[in-house]
Amino acid sequence: MSNLRIGIVSVSDRASGGVYKDEGIPALKEWLGRVIASPALDFEERLIPDERPIIESTLLELVDMKGCHLVLTTGGTGPARRDVTPEATLAVADKEMPGFGEQMRAVSLKYVPTAILSRQVAVIRKQALIINLPGQPKAIKETLDGVFAAVPYCIDLIGGPYIETNESLVKAFRPKSALKSQP
Amino acid sequence: MSNLRIGIVSVSDRASGGVYKDEGIPALKEWLGRVIASPALDFEERLIPDERPIIESTLLELVDMKGCHLVLTTGGTGPARRDVTPEATLAVADKEMPGFGEQMRAVSLKYVPTAILSRQVAVIRKQALIINLPGQPKAIKETLDGVFAAVPYCIDLIGGPYIETNESLVKAFRPKSALKSQP
Amino acid sequence: MSNLRIGIVSVSDRASGGVYKDEGIPALKEWLGRVIASPALDFEERLIPDERPIIESTLLELVDMKGCHLVLTTGGTGPARRDVTPEATLAVADKEMPGFGEQMRAVSLKYVPTAILSRQVAVIRKQALIINLPGQPKAIKETLDGVFAAVPYCIDLIGGPYIETNESLVKAFRPKSALKSQP
Repeated sequence: MSNLRIGIVSVSDRASGGVYKDEGIPALKEWLGRVIASPALDFEERLIPDERPIIESTLLELVDMKGCHLVLTTGGTGPARRDVTPEATLAVADKEMPGFGEQMRAVSLKYVPTAILSRQVAVIRKQALIINLPGQPKAIKETLDGVFAAVPYCIDLIGGPYIETNESLVKAFRPKSALKSQP
Repeated sequence: MSNLRIGIVSVSDRASGGVYKDEGIPALKEWLGRVIASPALDFEERLIPDERPIIESTLLELVDMKGCHLVLTTGGTGPARRDVTPEATLAVADKEMPGFGEQMRAVSLKYVPTAILSRQVAVIRKQALIINLPGQPKAIKETLDGVFAAVPYCIDLIGGPYIETNESLVKAFRPKSALKSQP
Repeated sequence: MSNLRIGIVSVSDRASGGVYKDEGIPALKEWLGRVIASPALDFEERLIPDERPIIESTLLELVDMKGCHLVLTTGGTGPARRDVTPEATLAVADKEMPGFGEQMRAVSLKYVPTAILSRQVAVIRKQALIINLPGQPKAIKETLDGVFAAVPYCIDLIGGPYIETNESLVKAFRPKSALKSQP
């Protein structure tokens, strides 16, 4: 069985400029390593500034050249002038997936009323699902906890490897017809 | 009083190709026949493949030539490469109605976490409300149960006939100023 | 400290044509005057018809010429042919803020199932947050109550004055790092 290729993109002027230490990539790798039981994971990590052309070219490289099945971005989704991750993501989209943004905001609203300021989107490009996540490790965990149950079946539908999760952490949902029979 | 003209469009490569029997059109007609008390219904039914130009031309025909007040599509709203019903629907829109998609996903989330993978949209074109529904009869019923209370007033606002429902099944809501006086 | 400049735009063919009295502007000023504790408020009020070019030029004037930090529109967000406020708002946007529309509809759904017919959007243009609100004073209050807690921090992030609210009415939320120290 082929590995699951996951792109992780931390978008931050300050972290990429060395002003502070990036916390997004370690938080994402830790969460994914705990939750995904199989197949084995190959990570492609990128730490880049809040520049729309760089975000777009990074997403294109990860999907088109590296063959990622899943790309998670962190950072750059707020209302500030430099926050352009959603625009860059939509620019490379084949299809928009509005339910992810809606559900991530609904989940975050349980914690903070400013969750509605997050402009996160998710899209399909070729064989990849790209999801924007918030910048803070705590918020990354909360939103992934809230949407990841739908990710394995989504990856099935776009032709990627069959993902199994540690069910005590996240119980992936598939219709019965999409379940692999047990060995 | 003029009849209510409803277009029903089942979008499926396999059902339209005869690989299996279409279940979407019968499920929709059954639901509408039970719930709508008046006026009388005229159905225009179409079973077509997941081809964006065909979906678009079918919607245009139903709204512009046949004069439908309401068009319901079923199928083609997922993330797979062949799922293009939302794109075709947006392409013929005068106005987007984002609340329908949001509410249909929120309703379906009570049943399955993969509801966020559904990309359903609703739009206004001329005198018609067009709503994308899921493909499975069970999910069609769940989502119509969740949004149909708003449909009669929406049809009022775009100039269509006054719809009355069987209130034990769906209680249509209108502001008092929009209620017809009882005879 | 500089004043908070707020544009209030009531969009209505009938109120702007003198057919009935505008209730949107007074309702908005009353609500804002009660809820915002500081800084002082400067209002720019406009009563205009449901004409997309007029709505767009009014928004441009309020943001680009008058320097408003916040612009609230009321009216013109339904499905009817003359309802074009969301389209005009999106046409002047630098960034879309989808969480506001989602949350306003979710809040209104607690009151009426036809809340999903409201097509309200919010956007950022330059230094301003622009939010579409419903037309009825009761619905204006309900939706502002539901989203305003996120507005002060949003205005911070786009460079505007530090808004403090009467916390018994609306408790503004900011992350600790964004709180001004008490004097």
